[in-house]
Amino acid sequence: MRQAGRYLPEYRKLRGDRDILETCKDPSQVVEITMQPLRRMDLDAAIVFSDIMVPLAGVGVDVHIEPGRGPVVDTPVRAERDIERLRPLEPEQDVPETLEAIRLLREELSVPLIGFAGAPFTLASYLIEGGPSRTHERTKGLMHGDHMAWDALMRALVAIVVPHLRAQVEAGAQALQVFDSWVGALDRDDYRRRVQPHMSSLFSGLVDLGVPVIHFGVGTGELLGQMAITGGQVLGIDWRVPIDEAWDRVGHDRAVQGNLDPAVLGAPWEMVERKTLEILRRAGGRDGHIFNLGHGVLPDTPPDVLARLVDFVHAETERRPA
Amino acid sequence: MRQAGRYLPEYRKLRGDRDILETCKDPSQVVEITMQPLRRMDLDAAIVFSDIMVPLAGVGVDVHIEPGRGPVVDTPVRAERDIERLRPLEPEQDVPETLEAIRLLREELSVPLIGFAGAPFTLASYLIEGGPSRTHERTKGLMHGDHMAWDALMRALVAIVVPHLRAQVEAGAQALQVFDSWVGALDRDDYRRRVQPHMSSLFSGLVDLGVPVIHFGVGTGELLGQMAITGGQVLGIDWRVPIDEAWDRVGHDRAVQGNLDPAVLGAPWEMVERKTLEILRRAGGRDGHIFNLGHGVLPDTPPDVLARLVDFVHAETERRPA
Repeated sequence: MRQAGRYLPEYRKLRGDRDILETCKDPSQVVEITMQPLRRMDLDAAIVFSDIMVPLAGVGVDVHIEPGRGPVVDTPVRAERDIERLRPLEPEQDVPETLEAIRLLREELSVPLIGFAGAPFTLASYLIEGGPSRTHERTKGLMHGDHMAWDALMRALVAIVVPHLRAQVEAGAQALQVFDSWVGALDRDDYRRRVQPHMSSLFSGLVDLGVPVIHFGVGTGELLGQMAITGGQVLGIDWRVPIDEAWDRVGHDRAVQGNLDPAVLGAPWEMVERKTLEILRRAGGRDGHIFNLGHGVLPDTPPDVLARLVDFVHAETERRPA
Repeated sequence: MRQAGRYLPEYRKLRGDRDILETCKDPSQVVEITMQPLRRMDLDAAIVFSDIMVPLAGVGVDVHIEPGRGPVVDTPVRAERDIERLRPLEPEQDVPETLEAIRLLREELSVPLIGFAGAPFTLASYLIEGGPSRTHERTKGLMHGDHMAWDALMRALVAIVVPHLRAQVEAGAQALQVFDSWVGALDRDDYRRRVQPHMSSLFSGLVDLGVPVIHFGVGTGELLGQMAITGGQVLGIDWRVPIDEAWDRVGHDRAVQGNLDPAVLGAPWEMVERKTLEILRRAGGRDGHIFNLGHGVLPDTPPDVLARLVDFVHAETERRPA
């Protein structure tokens, strides 16, 4: 689950009015926030508290996280010279606090720790639009309008994301998740031509690490086959596509993570149970199903329902034949 | 194309600072705005200038359209009594201006006129969330949490939408489009249980009119089979699913409308041409392909590119065997 603990009252209390990116620079707070969900529920893994914009801030992008809106980039990427300013990440210098927090977490944790990063398309959308976008209009404008600049931007982002992910593993992360959250806005042809080559180079840069990589996006039903070819031992899916059909699209040599609609957690428990059982039924008890939400926990989600869900999935999957 | 002419400078000049819903109450302005795109390009049909919120305003919902944001409902639907206030539409009393504009338009137009309405799920989302939503969290909350209230709301909306669509045809509209724009946020099971029965009743209420109905949504790749069963001689699709695959899902007894990504119109002409040719190639010259964008025209779209696209599609399709 994305956004380790952002929906928890103890997180809100701890962070107060501080910008998320500022909070990410305080290793002891990162450790505490990462641990918070684990104290409430019997989770099988932890994900380090961070934000996909952290490495961009690390190389000097003027980004902040606006409450209720999301990442805002004050000087969006619009021209060649904006792209040139995106220098490769030097993790120990640019994101030392995340790495320090990962080292500290490994001493405290009894479950595996997941590191993560945003994927180039999704990061590019924030950089180009200047904030969250429904249409990704300017992003597509650059992608279609200037292939040279687009490819330069994608390469610059790969040179930020790959060192960031590698450094997280070197610091102790035992798995990685790559969030290409908004890539589902593209058609398959654009994905293949303008995103896939860069994602392939990203995944190639991780192969020798020997850790599992989860490749995630929202609304990617039509792209799953391509995304699986591109990389990731695990494909993360949202709730729109039934998990058995998603599995057919990605291939049965991959694991699949998902796919409960986060909005269902606001419903009465009977509905949570019904939806969960349906996912487990469709997953058919196969090895390589990682039960999870199809996207991040919504801010108003009651933590008790999440904790109950974790226990319910454990009880149901222990009961089944492997 | 949705939003007749909202991207045109002559539209912006004509409307000035007036709220869209106010503008919709002026039949001569509705006629003028509906005609504007036809003066610039050789379109095969016109769509009446209106907004999916018009009939809700007609029955007394306090809605306005906020520039750059969309429909905002000041007192969102949260409880049973909010639903009770949604009385059935009496078109000649509640939306007389739209009907008058349609009558006037039929005298002026030499191409068919399309009337339209929002579908119950999409309208419900605006009513419940109080504005545009990325997650549709509260909408799904009511849908999952209170089936009685949800079904009452859907029925109330059908009793607004059906008379609205019927009255448009009686006033002269020669085809209808039903915009279930946001229904792609649902999984197939929720669609089948909580939306489809009400959509079936909506389509049943139009059958005797004898006009073609276009059934449209965004991000509906996984729902297309269900949506086709539900109704509509034409299924409108976005750009995420290739049109030939979409056609396989909806069945070859239906027509398909789409599926150019509106964001492509901001790209250099070569890209517009390449994407257009790919859609035409995949549609394979079949009867029943209505070339269109996959969603509304984006506000920054250059009108000249649209006009050139219309001519290009005409030239290409005349050249092909029927």
